[in-house]
Amino acid sequence: MKDLPQNPEASQPLRNWKLILAYDGADFRGWQVQPTQPTIQGELAEAIHQITGEHVLPQGSGRTDAGVHALGQVASFMLHAPIPEANLLHALNRKLSESIRVLSAQIVPTDFHARHSAIEKTYEYRIFRGEDCPPFVARYVFALNWPLNVEAMAAAATHVLGEHDFTSFAANDPEVGHNDTEAVEPNNIRTISESRWMSNNDTLLYRVTGNGFLHHMVRNLVGTFLDVGRGATPPAAIAEILAARSRSAAGPTAPARGLFLVSVRYPDPPPARVLP
Amino acid sequence: MKDLPQNPEASQPLRNWKLILAYDGADFRGWQVQPTQPTIQGELAEAIHQITGEHVLPQGSGRTDAGVHALGQVASFMLHAPIPEANLLHALNRKLSESIRVLSAQIVPTDFHARHSAIEKTYEYRIFRGEDCPPFVARYVFALNWPLNVEAMAAAATHVLGEHDFTSFAANDPEVGHNDTEAVEPNNIRTISESRWMSNNDTLLYRVTGNGFLHHMVRNLVGTFLDVGRGATPPAAIAEILAARSRSAAGPTAPARGLFLVSVRYPDPPPARVLP
Repeated sequence: MKDLPQNPEASQPLRNWKLILAYDGADFRGWQVQPTQPTIQGELAEAIHQITGEHVLPQGSGRTDAGVHALGQVASFMLHAPIPEANLLHALNRKLSESIRVLSAQIVPTDFHARHSAIEKTYEYRIFRGEDCPPFVARYVFALNWPLNVEAMAAAATHVLGEHDFTSFAANDPEVGHNDTEAVEPNNIRTISESRWMSNNDTLLYRVTGNGFLHHMVRNLVGTFLDVGRGATPPAAIAEILAARSRSAAGPTAPARGLFLVSVRYPDPPPARVLP
Repeated sequence: MKDLPQNPEASQPLRNWKLILAYDGADFRGWQVQPTQPTIQGELAEAIHQITGEHVLPQGSGRTDAGVHALGQVASFMLHAPIPEANLLHALNRKLSESIRVLSAQIVPTDFHARHSAIEKTYEYRIFRGEDCPPFVARYVFALNWPLNVEAMAAAATHVLGEHDFTSFAANDPEVGHNDTEAVEPNNIRTISESRWMSNNDTLLYRVTGNGFLHHMVRNLVGTFLDVGRGATPPAAIAEILAARSRSAAGPTAPARGLFLVSVRYPDPPPARVLP
C-alpha cells in the first residue's frame, strides 16, 4: 500500500478513531511518549504520522508502566485522512514493530475518548509457581517459587470488593495525572467489581475489574496479597490496610512484568434514533 | 549460597558435566562466544566461572544461530569443583539471565562430549498463520499469512527422508567448522529419520530429526517447503534439488525466530559391567 500524501487535505472532516491494541511491554518504557525512549504512544504516533502525514498524540485508556503488557489497551485520536477502517488497521500493523499489534480500528462518535469514556477496566497478574521458569514465559510472569497459602490470598482478595479509598495501594507519586481515571474521580475512591485468584497448573492468576485504578494499584494489591500468601499478613488485615490510607500500611509493589491490561469497557453505543 | 573460592583446589579430580538448556534465542547473537556480544556459550562460561572460579568453554551439541531458540540444547565441560549436581543447577539458574534456563545438570562419564557423542537431533520450526500475530508469540514464530498448500508441503517433506547429500540445503559458508556434525561426517551426507508438517489452530509446525544438520539446513528446508506451499515448486522437485548439490537450486532461508532445537539424543549409557 502507498502512503497517503504528507500534506493531507485539511479540508477533509476530522473523524474520531478508536484502536484496540495488544503489546509486549517488555520492549517499551511504558505507554507515555518520552523523547529518547521507546514507548507505545510514541511508536503509535509515529506510525500514524507515516501513514497519514498527520501529527496526533493517541490518548490511551490509561498509562501502562514500563514492562506492563496489554491484551486490550484502547487508544483514541482524530484524523482528517479519509482512510477506510480496514486500511488503517493493516497499514498500522505493517508500520508498527511486532511488539505492538492493532486488533481493531474503528471510526467512532466524536465524543468518544479512550480515557474519559472508560467505565471499567480489567487487569490480570500472572505468577509462575514452578521450579524453573521457561525462558519463553519469563517475560510475562513474576516467577515465585516459595510456598503460598492460596486460600488465604483468595480470602484477602474479597476484602477489596466494593467502593473503597485505595490510598494505601496508590504509589506515593507526585505525578497526580498518572492515575488512569483522574478525570473520572479526582480522589482515591474506586469501586472494584471483581477481585479473585485463580490457579492453573504452574500459574497463579489474579484478576481484578474496577471503575478505575490508581498508579501501581494492581501491583500493590498483588504485593500485599503475596504477603498474605506467605503468612506475613492475615487476610482480614486488608480492611485495616484500606482504612489506614497510607502506602506504608500495604505490601510491596509486585514487578511490572506479570501485569496485563486485559480490557477496557465503554458505555454501549446509544440506541439508534427511531424516526417519528 | 556463597560462591566457591576463586582459586579452586586443582587437586580435586576433574569431573565431566552435561547440562540440558532451554533458551530464548531472540536475546542472543547465537550460541558461540563473541567478544562483545551476548551469546549463550559466553553467558554460560561466565556463570560457571563466577560459581566455581574455573575457566571453561562449554561445548554445545552444535551452534545455534542468532535468534534460534532451544528447548533442549546440550552442553558439556570439565570442572574440578566438587559441587553436587543439584547445587550447580540451582547456582547456574540464579546467575544466568532468565532467557537461559538449565533444565538438568549431571555428572557424566569423561568420554561424553555434547557434540561428538550426539547421535540424533530434533528441530521444530513454527509458522504463525493467523491474520495478526499476537506480540507475545511474535518472537517465536515466522508469521506468514499468505495461502499455503499444506498437503503439498507435507508431500515434499517426505522426499528428504533417508540418507542424502544435503549440499543444496547448506549455507554457502566458508566456515567449514560450523556444521554441527563436522566431527561425525566430514561431508554433506546426512540421514533424516523424521520430516513432517503438522498444523494446530493458527500454527504450522515442521518437525525434523536426523543424525546431523548442516549450517542453515533446517531453515533452508523450511524455505524450500514454503516455495512448494505457495505453488512455486512441485513437491517432487525436492529430489531434483537434492541431486543438484547446489545452494541455488533450493529456496530461501526461513527466518531464525521460528526455529527451535528440541532435543539431542545420545547413546544409552553402557550397561553396568557384571562382575565375574
